[in-house]
Amino acid sequence: MSDSPVIALAKDLISRSSVTPEDAGCQDVMIARLKALGFTIEPMVFEDTTNLWARRGTEAPLLVFAGHTDVVPAGNLNHWHTPPFEPTIIDGYLHGRGAADMKGSLACMIVAIERFLAEHPEHTGSIGLLITSDEEGPFINGTTRVVDTLEARNEKIDMCIVGEPSSTHAVGDVVKNGRRGSITGDLIIKGTQGHVAYPHLADNPVHRAMPALAELATTTWDNGNEFFPPTSFQIANLAAGTGASNVIPGEFHVQFNFRYSTELTEEDIKRKVHSILDAHGLEYEITWTFSGHPFLTDTGTLLEAVVAAIEEVNHQKPELLTTGGTSDGRFIAQTGAQVIELGPVNATIHKINECVKVADLEKLTDMYQKIMEKVL
Amino acid sequence: MSDSPVIALAKDLISRSSVTPEDAGCQDVMIARLKALGFTIEPMVFEDTTNLWARRGTEAPLLVFAGHTDVVPAGNLNHWHTPPFEPTIIDGYLHGRGAADMKGSLACMIVAIERFLAEHPEHTGSIGLLITSDEEGPFINGTTRVVDTLEARNEKIDMCIVGEPSSTHAVGDVVKNGRRGSITGDLIIKGTQGHVAYPHLADNPVHRAMPALAELATTTWDNGNEFFPPTSFQIANLAAGTGASNVIPGEFHVQFNFRYSTELTEEDIKRKVHSILDAHGLEYEITWTFSGHPFLTDTGTLLEAVVAAIEEVNHQKPELLTTGGTSDGRFIAQTGAQVIELGPVNATIHKINECVKVADLEKLTDMYQKIMEKVL
Repeated sequence: MSDSPVIALAKDLISRSSVTPEDAGCQDVMIARLKALGFTIEPMVFEDTTNLWARRGTEAPLLVFAGHTDVVPAGNLNHWHTPPFEPTIIDGYLHGRGAADMKGSLACMIVAIERFLAEHPEHTGSIGLLITSDEEGPFINGTTRVVDTLEARNEKIDMCIVGEPSSTHAVGDVVKNGRRGSITGDLIIKGTQGHVAYPHLADNPVHRAMPALAELATTTWDNGNEFFPPTSFQIANLAAGTGASNVIPGEFHVQFNFRYSTELTEEDIKRKVHSILDAHGLEYEITWTFSGHPFLTDTGTLLEAVVAAIEEVNHQKPELLTTGGTSDGRFIAQTGAQVIELGPVNATIHKINECVKVADLEKLTDMYQKIMEKVL
Repeated sequence: MSDSPVIALAKDLISRSSVTPEDAGCQDVMIARLKALGFTIEPMVFEDTTNLWARRGTEAPLLVFAGHTDVVPAGNLNHWHTPPFEPTIIDGYLHGRGAADMKGSLACMIVAIERFLAEHPEHTGSIGLLITSDEEGPFINGTTRVVDTLEARNEKIDMCIVGEPSSTHAVGDVVKNGRRGSITGDLIIKGTQGHVAYPHLADNPVHRAMPALAELATTTWDNGNEFFPPTSFQIANLAAGTGASNVIPGEFHVQFNFRYSTELTEEDIKRKVHSILDAHGLEYEITWTFSGHPFLTDTGTLLEAVVAAIEEVNHQKPELLTTGGTSDGRFIAQTGAQVIELGPVNATIHKINECVKVADLEKLTDMYQKIMEKVL
């Protein structure tokens, strides 16, 4: 049985080893298809990042499909059942790095647009694609810079579908209508180095810090709200010691990350962390890295169209959630656009043997097409 | 003013850059002096380690002076007031790497033996020297292998003076008549790696372990006894995380070290650590590295002679302590020998600008000579 158009395109994209910030020719494949549809193609290369802005039409509303061609590294190749950049269908699942996050979605977008235009060549509004090769990386030269460029010339995105893998068990069971904020703290707790045999001459910052870290780990930061789960704190990295077993460390490094709801601001979080550390009498420094404000699309034309399109395909409404990681949706939402994330099941993303159900990609193509039919 | 015999010899030894396991010719300097005194010289080279066994006499009791020619690295040379391997006297202190730990002591031993033999050529018993170039290193091919060799041929050490810097403010204010035991645990606490955005799908071993580590850090392991301070627990090294701020670590590595009294055995310690970790429901593995049993010389001819010799020189009795790091004394004590550590002030050992008071080396030479006079 030969591959359907969506699967054929997904395989073509997966076979290109586009680990962040590489695009590896993926966007050229998409450009060829979009040019044939009458899109205006505008590559935007910033530093090491390859971005694509493509638009068809000049009228409002502008509906944008956003996504990324880059993938996370494959990890240990020995643990993959199939080579990560050789797309392979096994038991109805398409396997390969990027199958679910998110080359599958990119294929669905292109094929859905092709089908929509074939049926509605004279649609209202405009269709755009905002594609980057740096969504999994430091997100400095990707979506955020394309958005800046569009804003600088008053090109306004009204609605945006982000193809991130939003679904839990079957495609469309969950859409993300917002995302939590993210902020990271790099904490250095100071002590006094010394020999383990003379603990009274040293001050072990690890021993001193543990009650404070335990309190940070067990604190209820908020209870979330209708759209957001409670804010969560996680220690991601931690290190102390010289490597020698007979030396009490002089410093203790702890990196933690908050995923936070619209109930808190970054300033609230910083204030509370400082107050806990201060209460424990620690001598410390924190360097904060801010990754993104929380955002929310709780009403509007796009949300209604997405919910209706999914219901038509799945005969069931999606759940609206704001859980999960950050996505480039946060940069687009900052412009005032309605932003919804709809993509395949995320169970295997960033993992060994990443895969996506072939039937889900076909359904996702239908959903994207129906959304266009409703809003354009 | 020209240097005294002790200072001249100490300078000669310090000028040789004998960082572990290098001897850099130090033992040859000692051998030349000992040969002239009628010692039988037996070099024992094991792998990268240069050891010396020298003995004069065949009768019991055998009094051994034990020490090492190796030194710890100098560290950042820019922070030294004088080059570490160019011995220099400033304001009555001899500066240089090894001045206090323990090339000063080695010079005192040689000069004390020379003086003792000049006055008592027909002494009873025997004098030995057990010198290694690997006391500061992994102690695999040093004292422990010389001791094994002697035991294998039934050559019995009755009494041993270890020249480690035992003193706190002035030479002889403290002698070590025992040492704590040392055991290191390498603990791996297991969790489940995941994305920080999906904490419910992961199990952060750092969060899970902190209460257990806090309990280990605050537990009273024992109260010590007449000769030993309470057993102490210190976390020396600790690491978790992939380096990425958005990944919950899957494992948490903690290395801790116990310095323990004769109130506990290594088995007691292992049992109690396991019971605390188990009580916290942790999934973990521990690899134990055993460095030495505690030892104690609480009575006997040697201790009496040492105390009396110090009192004659200082007009004050020494304090008997078992605090501080391990030393090669533990290997010699295992044979049943009486072991006492007596050496200079340890305030600067292993540090930048290591130094020893010139007058203290002269006093230490007198003490060593008087001890020989009392026991041989």
